[in-house]
Amino acid sequence: MMNENSPTSAAGLVRPNIAALAGYVPGEQPSDTRVIKLNTNENPYPPSPRVLEAIRHVSAEQLRRYPSPNAKTFREAAAQVHGLTPDMILATNGGDELLSIAIRACAGETNAVAFLDPSYSLYPVLTALQGAKPLVLPYRITGNTWTLPATIAQTKAAILLIVNPNAPSGTLADVAQLGQIARDFPGLLLIDEAYVDFAPTSALSLVQSCPNVLILRSLSKGYGLAGLRFGYGIAQPALLSQLEKVRDSYPVDVVATAAATAAILDQDYARDTWQRVIAERERLGTELREMGFGLTSSSSNFLLAQVSPRMAVPETDTPAAAAKAIYERLKAADILVRYFNLPNLTDKLRITIGTPEQNDRLLAELRNIIA
Amino acid sequence: MMNENSPTSAAGLVRPNIAALAGYVPGEQPSDTRVIKLNTNENPYPPSPRVLEAIRHVSAEQLRRYPSPNAKTFREAAAQVHGLTPDMILATNGGDELLSIAIRACAGETNAVAFLDPSYSLYPVLTALQGAKPLVLPYRITGNTWTLPATIAQTKAAILLIVNPNAPSGTLADVAQLGQIARDFPGLLLIDEAYVDFAPTSALSLVQSCPNVLILRSLSKGYGLAGLRFGYGIAQPALLSQLEKVRDSYPVDVVATAAATAAILDQDYARDTWQRVIAERERLGTELREMGFGLTSSSSNFLLAQVSPRMAVPETDTPAAAAKAIYERLKAADILVRYFNLPNLTDKLRITIGTPEQNDRLLAELRNIIA
Repeated sequence: MMNENSPTSAAGLVRPNIAALAGYVPGEQPSDTRVIKLNTNENPYPPSPRVLEAIRHVSAEQLRRYPSPNAKTFREAAAQVHGLTPDMILATNGGDELLSIAIRACAGETNAVAFLDPSYSLYPVLTALQGAKPLVLPYRITGNTWTLPATIAQTKAAILLIVNPNAPSGTLADVAQLGQIARDFPGLLLIDEAYVDFAPTSALSLVQSCPNVLILRSLSKGYGLAGLRFGYGIAQPALLSQLEKVRDSYPVDVVATAAATAAILDQDYARDTWQRVIAERERLGTELREMGFGLTSSSSNFLLAQVSPRMAVPETDTPAAAAKAIYERLKAADILVRYFNLPNLTDKLRITIGTPEQNDRLLAELRNIIA
Repeated sequence: MMNENSPTSAAGLVRPNIAALAGYVPGEQPSDTRVIKLNTNENPYPPSPRVLEAIRHVSAEQLRRYPSPNAKTFREAAAQVHGLTPDMILATNGGDELLSIAIRACAGETNAVAFLDPSYSLYPVLTALQGAKPLVLPYRITGNTWTLPATIAQTKAAILLIVNPNAPSGTLADVAQLGQIARDFPGLLLIDEAYVDFAPTSALSLVQSCPNVLILRSLSKGYGLAGLRFGYGIAQPALLSQLEKVRDSYPVDVVATAAATAAILDQDYARDTWQRVIAERERLGTELREMGFGLTSSSSNFLLAQVSPRMAVPETDTPAAAAKAIYERLKAADILVRYFNLPNLTDKLRITIGTPEQNDRLLAELRNIIA
């Protein structure tokens, strides 16, 4: 059989679920460094100076050899920081790789993957890639209060994914509720704590008592290292031994491991950036409320701001049109925020917390836009 | 339903094909730098000095932001080196990630993944992870000549993986034969050229005429960057658009991209290391033949050396026992080579080509071991 040199034949080479897929669309990453990027939840502060130092100390000989398959130094450092043993840490090429590993490990084509909506938009993409069945659980949204569905633990799925604090709402489910879900849900419960460094509580303690809990952590946000692609999982060793089979033989490179190790060991530096972001989140939230935005209670490094019907945005006649117009007018002024044309989100903007100066610029532009 | 805190419950959380899997076992990576590592096919020479320079120029601001989702600078550099367009290049976190992406894109649980045996031992692992059906095609082995099966193009599989030059034999199938297979085989043909930099020919030209060919390249061997985890695929844009859906949103980090770009642009440096390795391969081959080893014709940066029955290795009575004993006695002398306890390989050692000094040390030890 001959293949024809056309795009249709390429689609014929892959599985139908892949050919049908649009693929994940990441947030805009402009190369123009003058742009104020409040759209992809990076930390506004750079990583610890010790990170650059660690990167500059990597030798040619380290680059030449295969790295430690287990990112040994990082696992030891993370274990020390969390008061755990290294065999409870699994390092991955970004938190996204841990999501992919967990879904591939748990869900075959006859299994369901459960996740909330609205939540991290990569979950349905990874589920479709695997050819597994998506089980979408709607958030209960009352005004600006978002809560998990009451029957969430009864979900029939191989794996349940909960971002906590949630994206894009920033809302936090409490640890007792997550513990109850972990005990009642028979599959793997992945608690995606990509934003937890900006929250008052973490579900980390659940791994000790719940063998089905996998905590995801990322260095992208809390440690100012989105460019590095470094995440990790925390779970009981028996669970990690299963997941380790699915990851690449050498998932993280020697430079990234050195950088991530330096970052996590400099807790004082990281905590200082978290405090600053939290302080700015409170200030920005107050200012946005005064402008008329409705806000969820965010425990993250972003705010979800809802345009209320009483806000006047010229040349728009609905809150959804106003939200989109604000996004576009901010973009024209070199400020990027995130607008999602998705159910429950069309009248909202997700705004990453910037530095005080960046937030002031944002507020000034918003005052120009909103009459 | 309650889970129990025991390893058996962890196995119950994952798919049966994962629970049943032993996982891939990478070659030994000792931390002791005195050990002469001729076991995992690294380049004996460090990367170009421009690589370290590029790494040291990465800024805190680059680390703070998400990287280019497409590793733009690397794609442009690789396209320039190969005389292709950037849309024919897909950068991945090591060549292994490209293998995983291609298999996940093409093979569901009802599809077959075809590969040769003996070949790269990660292929059956990735197939089992996906829950797809392995279709093992035995190499035709006559003495030290390894050839592809005559009916290989008639294989009924969604994807066919051929390492060329092959590992662990180092043998090379010619481009005309691969072209014929590409035209006759209806699925995706992945030609894994991880070792091609040490070979006289490449199948790269096939991507122009064959829409179902995906070429894998790696910077681990040819560019002395095993520690970096950087590989890439080359194919027609229509095929890469499908595969891109399966990869992570940001598969390669900003430091690795800068390093890989510098490495591939310094072709003069890399070519010089290839010439040195090839020269040593010929010298080492001649010496090993004189000792009585049988050798395949290697186009790679390693040799597959077969212990012949007429070689005398004290305290061993079969070639297989002798091969294993040589591996162990070399290890005791701080020289690592690779021994596979697998069909067709039990009487052989795979020896990575080292520097002239390392190869001299190896030869001296072998002369001690072999009576």
